[in-house]
Amino acid sequence: MKHFWTSQSTRIFADLAELTRDPEVGITRESYGDGESLAIRYLTQFAQEAGLKVSTDRAGNIVFQRKTDLGGPSLWCGSHLDSVPQGGNYDGLAGVVAGLLCLKQLDEEQATTPLAFRVLGLRGEESAWFGKSYMGSRALMGGLSPADLTLTNRFNKRTLAERMKAVGADVEAISRQQWLIDRSELAGYVEVHIEQAESLERQGQALGVVPGIRGNLRHNQVICIGEDGHSGAVSRQDRHDSVFAVSELIARIDKRWGEWVASGRDLVVTVGTIGTNTAHHAVSRIPGEVSFSLELRSLHQATLTEFYELIQQERRLIEEARKVSFEFDQRIDTQPASMHGPWVDHLQAITREQGLQGVLTPSGAGHDAAVFANADIPSAMLFIRNQHGSHNPHEAMRIDDFVQATSVLYQAAKEFKL
Amino acid sequence: MKHFWTSQSTRIFADLAELTRDPEVGITRESYGDGESLAIRYLTQFAQEAGLKVSTDRAGNIVFQRKTDLGGPSLWCGSHLDSVPQGGNYDGLAGVVAGLLCLKQLDEEQATTPLAFRVLGLRGEESAWFGKSYMGSRALMGGLSPADLTLTNRFNKRTLAERMKAVGADVEAISRQQWLIDRSELAGYVEVHIEQAESLERQGQALGVVPGIRGNLRHNQVICIGEDGHSGAVSRQDRHDSVFAVSELIARIDKRWGEWVASGRDLVVTVGTIGTNTAHHAVSRIPGEVSFSLELRSLHQATLTEFYELIQQERRLIEEARKVSFEFDQRIDTQPASMHGPWVDHLQAITREQGLQGVLTPSGAGHDAAVFANADIPSAMLFIRNQHGSHNPHEAMRIDDFVQATSVLYQAAKEFKL
Repeated sequence: MKHFWTSQSTRIFADLAELTRDPEVGITRESYGDGESLAIRYLTQFAQEAGLKVSTDRAGNIVFQRKTDLGGPSLWCGSHLDSVPQGGNYDGLAGVVAGLLCLKQLDEEQATTPLAFRVLGLRGEESAWFGKSYMGSRALMGGLSPADLTLTNRFNKRTLAERMKAVGADVEAISRQQWLIDRSELAGYVEVHIEQAESLERQGQALGVVPGIRGNLRHNQVICIGEDGHSGAVSRQDRHDSVFAVSELIARIDKRWGEWVASGRDLVVTVGTIGTNTAHHAVSRIPGEVSFSLELRSLHQATLTEFYELIQQERRLIEEARKVSFEFDQRIDTQPASMHGPWVDHLQAITREQGLQGVLTPSGAGHDAAVFANADIPSAMLFIRNQHGSHNPHEAMRIDDFVQATSVLYQAAKEFKL
Repeated sequence: MKHFWTSQSTRIFADLAELTRDPEVGITRESYGDGESLAIRYLTQFAQEAGLKVSTDRAGNIVFQRKTDLGGPSLWCGSHLDSVPQGGNYDGLAGVVAGLLCLKQLDEEQATTPLAFRVLGLRGEESAWFGKSYMGSRALMGGLSPADLTLTNRFNKRTLAERMKAVGADVEAISRQQWLIDRSELAGYVEVHIEQAESLERQGQALGVVPGIRGNLRHNQVICIGEDGHSGAVSRQDRHDSVFAVSELIARIDKRWGEWVASGRDLVVTVGTIGTNTAHHAVSRIPGEVSFSLELRSLHQATLTEFYELIQQERRLIEEARKVSFEFDQRIDTQPASMHGPWVDHLQAITREQGLQGVLTPSGAGHDAAVFANADIPSAMLFIRNQHGSHNPHEAMRIDDFVQATSVLYQAAKEFKL
């Protein structure tokens, strides 16, 4: 079985890397775009050749089932098929492939399981495209608002509604925030995913069981407005320099972040994008405008809320001192989530039975599993160690570790019950 | 005479604002590009209608002379005809118009002057286009290197050589760094310019006499290289975050700058452009790369050199602490310049005769006059007060002040001698 999974998964990952390679570097599978759809077509063909049933749900995600699936409360094994621009091959894809290999194995064995086992290939998990994450899972459970549907892809400027419609999603129903899946059939959700940090790698552990997932708080764009002027001609005290103001704010945030981490708080802060206005910035011009993004992540909602308030205090001090103003766009919140306790224990037990240590690995990154958990669906996650971080072209995963995870998932499919 | 200058200059400024208005906001006269050439064509027609002689020098600048000009040591009154993108109407243009009105007046009066009076409309003064300033005056005096000629316009990516050739400059001779003007005819240079600061406005003075011009030290691009990664997944101590590194560097530079100014040093620091790499930055990605520009200005070369060394020290500390690296592109230096002492005194005397105070106003911004002064050509500058700073669309100048400056220049043309 493991030998077969090794050869099958090696081929699938190689084929999909080839199909969705970015012209410059890494892998690009755009949310509701080309690379993502190519992955869906490829996996559809694989599943059909394996005699599995393939369908599209009302949110445009792909569903794989056994033909003997009689419905009823099911265990959904899912992950996503998109990537960040110029990202890696395994972030998302690994979980769908692990699920498919298990499903195929169960079908070939004509195995009976406590819950029907289904595989869900989600679209639109990455926020890099529309500034919103978990779109595929949110859409399925009434979690995308009409305002979200007007978000635009930052590269091609198409709206989310337009792109979802193009892949067959029922945008009308989504905008009414209905559940597009029969809740009685959604007994649980389990997700295999590469760890996006390197903590398992450092601990020398192939797999980790996830007890909880960080939430986040985002502003896709904060604009600092100062005043343009000739760089040599306005004296220091008369400047309203947006770049010095933003640098001071970011440096203060960084310092405070260090203090919070040192005092044991779980917190991550990122300013992933920054830029002066290219239409009228110049080397010899005092920059009157600079914009940046802001993201906080924590396992604890209170930490997010309190650190955000601290940022607002620092911001007001700088506005006052430098006579600039900061304009924050709509704040986007994703709640932290806890995995289903009995299943966390159960996954630890399975990994130990297979000779591993069953270490607990809180998730720093967000995942679709958080959306299911926050919709009160019992959820579980299993991490595979990763050698070069995530959201970059050098992301890595050993096939042996992947096969081990598939093996744990297979056992979970056979044992998980309500 | 003053009444005539008022009506003439009002019309010229209005016509040229109309001709070179930016589609969005302000005035755009691209160096060796459309707006600059439009200004040259307009002023050529004006001068020809006034019976003056118009020619193009070998660097592509425009020269206005009286038809009775017999050559020999001449006083060249110059300024530039380009602007920054979306800049103001008077920065540069005012000095050329003042010169032309004086030349026309001298010609109509058939006045004799100690030195022949000529007007020079320079191209390419602003660094906003090619990252290099004073190109028109440098080219004239052998100060543009073959490497400079390969610089590209940051908007249309054409090389400086290509754009200079298109306006008739002798690029071959320029690249050999020859003088393209007969040095014996270049007895002196005088420039009228709006002040790019608001110090005259604050002092309630219409005009100021410039004793010296700040030099500058520039890097058009410094790149900070860190490491990309998933924002939620890499712990604080494992990050090599380029945005936090650059923010810390800029905040430290800003703090040190404040200390130097407080201790009486003449120094201006500007980071006019900053940006993460738009090809692969994202809100949820640790930024692995950010680039920015750096400019120092001072009246004193030692201040530039010493502060630059301080920045390099700070940079090394941050590289060490954060495991990032800073890559500085070619450093571009422009020396500070002193104006010709006897003419500074003489301009003060003329302004006092006209009922003004003849205040001394060091120039914070650089000017073509610095290129002439550093080539050992006796040079002088007269500033006109400006209400809203420079290099921005709101730059302002009162016509009465302009006419007063023209009147001082007219007297200087009649009196300046070697």
